[in-house]
Amino acid sequence: MAKPATKLVIVTEKLLLKKIAQIIDEAGATGYSAVDAGGQGSRNVRSTGKPTVSGTYSNVKIEVLTDSRDMALKIAAEVSAQFFDNYSGIAYLCEAEVLSARKFCGPDGC
Amino acid sequence: MAKPATKLVIVTEKLLLKKIAQIIDEAGATGYSAVDAGGQGSRNVRSTGKPTVSGTYSNVKIEVLTDSRDMALKIAAEVSAQFFDNYSGIAYLCEAEVLSARKFCGPDGC
Amino acid sequence: MAKPATKLVIVTEKLLLKKIAQIIDEAGATGYSAVDAGGQGSRNVRSTGKPTVSGTYSNVKIEVLTDSRDMALKIAAEVSAQFFDNYSGIAYLCEAEVLSARKFCGPDGC
Repeated sequence: MAKPATKLVIVTEKLLLKKIAQIIDEAGATGYSAVDAGGQGSRNVRSTGKPTVSGTYSNVKIEVLTDSRDMALKIAAEVSAQFFDNYSGIAYLCEAEVLSARKFCGPDGC
Repeated sequence: MAKPATKLVIVTEKLLLKKIAQIIDEAGATGYSAVDAGGQGSRNVRSTGKPTVSGTYSNVKIEVLTDSRDMALKIAAEVSAQFFDNYSGIAYLCEAEVLSARKFCGPDGC
Repeated sequence: MAKPATKLVIVTEKLLLKKIAQIIDEAGATGYSAVDAGGQGSRNVRSTGKPTVSGTYSNVKIEVLTDSRDMALKIAAEVSAQFFDNYSGIAYLCEAEVLSARKFCGPDGC
């Protein structure tokens, strides 16, 4: 039942969530999950000019499972081009295997 | 010191957490972690009939590290069979290496 | 554009976050992210003596992307040596590929 998939993870500033969700949607991905995150990056300053303090949860970690590696690369390239000049953020991939694909099925079938 | 392990990730509706924790426990896994998650799936509606709105954290992301791939598959199959007809959810695997196994040791030893 | 990296994940008690962040920083890693987590481990008691209840979010899941596997192993060994005798916790690795390294660039360049 297992199906290879690529997991794209984007950790960035929370205020970008909606815009990134739109990029994910437009790329044809079928869903994502988002989790509040704190942390510290090497820039050590946020776009607000305030230092990043560990323990504050003003970042978001977004995960997308894509059928193809190409789709993950496309989403990451678009997010990076639009936001990572001005906002802190990182995008990385992991290999995964989807066991239950039910969420990937829309109301019109799989 | 590193020991190969399988990481099972289940993202689903928060109200299922306790029941899934029980399935994990009964399968013989020694622990799990759970994180609040928001997101959007392709079903685009939740079991409550309300559309999923990104930014609401009514999902949960559960992670289980299992010694064997078989245990991960068994947990995922059971969760899928019990819940994924009626609730949105996804289960996937990643390969991992456990560095510190102390948490896997109970009061009676490892 | 993809660059191999090692993702180190540490799940442990929340009160250790600041100390672990310092270990990560001293090891030369350029950042980390932290997420509130609940869950249950096989010890089934926390250092406070209270049983771990799923659904309480008194744990933290810390993720560090390191250029080298050695750096990840070094951080995990240090965290384990300092804390895992007295606190519940687990450390594991996953392989990853960093797509956008902009966060790894400081104000003085990459």
